[in-house]
Amino acid sequence: MTHHFDDAISLAPQGEGVMTGATSPAYANFIGPYGGITAAQVLNAVLQDPRRVGDPVALTVNYAAALADGAFSAHARPARTNRSTQHWIVELRQGDETMIVATVMTAVRRDTWSGHEAHPPEVPPPADVPRTPRQRVEWLNRYDTRFITGLMPRHWEGQGGAESLTRLWVRDEPLRPLDFASLTAMADIFFPRLWLRRATQTPIGTVTMTVYYHTDAAQLAATGTDYLLAQAKGQGFRNGYFDHAGQLWNEAGELLATTHQAVYYKE
Amino acid sequence: MTHHFDDAISLAPQGEGVMTGATSPAYANFIGPYGGITAAQVLNAVLQDPRRVGDPVALTVNYAAALADGAFSAHARPARTNRSTQHWIVELRQGDETMIVATVMTAVRRDTWSGHEAHPPEVPPPADVPRTPRQRVEWLNRYDTRFITGLMPRHWEGQGGAESLTRLWVRDEPLRPLDFASLTAMADIFFPRLWLRRATQTPIGTVTMTVYYHTDAAQLAATGTDYLLAQAKGQGFRNGYFDHAGQLWNEAGELLATTHQAVYYKE
Repeated sequence: MTHHFDDAISLAPQGEGVMTGATSPAYANFIGPYGGITAAQVLNAVLQDPRRVGDPVALTVNYAAALADGAFSAHARPARTNRSTQHWIVELRQGDETMIVATVMTAVRRDTWSGHEAHPPEVPPPADVPRTPRQRVEWLNRYDTRFITGLMPRHWEGQGGAESLTRLWVRDEPLRPLDFASLTAMADIFFPRLWLRRATQTPIGTVTMTVYYHTDAAQLAATGTDYLLAQAKGQGFRNGYFDHAGQLWNEAGELLATTHQAVYYKE
Repeated sequence: MTHHFDDAISLAPQGEGVMTGATSPAYANFIGPYGGITAAQVLNAVLQDPRRVGDPVALTVNYAAALADGAFSAHARPARTNRSTQHWIVELRQGDETMIVATVMTAVRRDTWSGHEAHPPEVPPPADVPRTPRQRVEWLNRYDTRFITGLMPRHWEGQGGAESLTRLWVRDEPLRPLDFASLTAMADIFFPRLWLRRATQTPIGTVTMTVYYHTDAAQLAATGTDYLLAQAKGQGFRNGYFDHAGQLWNEAGELLATTHQAVYYKE
């Protein structure tokens, strides 16, 4: 039996630069799929392409329209290939309609001076943090999440705080060794920061997400099925759009990725 | 006489979705043009397109190759147009080669609940901060910059600090009223954060930059020729790539944009 996640991101080649896939009921959101699984599908279109040079450095996924449940085609084109770097344009389409527009940058990386500046905050270990109970929204059950601070509001009466910082432990449920695709999916683990600033239910949706990768296959393999510490905090909230900035570390405290997104809200 | 900046970003329509432009000697960097002016040219290809819906919400520019001095063509395609949002793919080409790959998201924005979370730090006013002297690199002379903290290193002996925070005041030189294009260019004002962590001269270059816009035409016009307070800080530095996160406020303390970028460094 394959893991839900591998099922969800699997793509069937249909000739150079074209693959087909489908949304996964296991990662269903309120409407359409979890944005993180879509980002992982986009990345996988590049990872599976035999023309690929190197590993992911940066990914930007623009959610142009809500994917309908069902099949899609992934169209990946290396717009520029250099000696050790490559710049991809990826589109997911349903019928003739473009639903997702993305860019992926890959590179063959070399050992250089390194020294992360975004250090993990001091937090209790996963075993000391209560696990989030089972949820009605299906994709949430694909993750073991343990919120340290910045939990989802319990009362929806419009109040909120001055800050939208969330920190949580997260890993796949059931367990699955971490790789670039699952790291990408987890970069979208954060519920909308707006809810911490103003607990009101309003139509909402990510319009663009960027992930910068600070890791490699060996470090991901060493991280394995450990929890990731995920942190995000809002920045600007104005006239229908807000953004947040986030970071993901492994249990050893190594920074694996940074991420940003802009999110639409109706009112 | 038009302003250097307007000259630099001007594009000549060549039929639907194609415009021609050229690099500007006034914004020359060590090699090729200042990345910020390239980002402004990309945005301008969308701003000038008669098919455009709304104002910029998000821009991601991937610097796939170093633009050669001279002419380029800009190819802009609205991959998806919704009722009030639009997702663009933009490429800059020289000859048959793609040099820049970008996405732009635009939207018609409505008045909603707003409340920025990224507040400006307390800093002295521009008049109390010394102006950076004239530089040999030409594009630096297109800006009046006043560094509050995190100045460029004076000695290149490899030492560096634990943090790469920079704060500076910046505006166009000569003065020019702020708009979406010039705000975009200023989002790339930061010298490489690596230099504050390790003052060594090594080949370096931005590979991707994202800007999220938290402003509108009226607020930009009200900001006019005031200085912007620009802040950036590095996050991950590992095996040839680092990233930073930044914010830009006007003198009134209003957040106008947030920005992130990933940067290549050779060693």
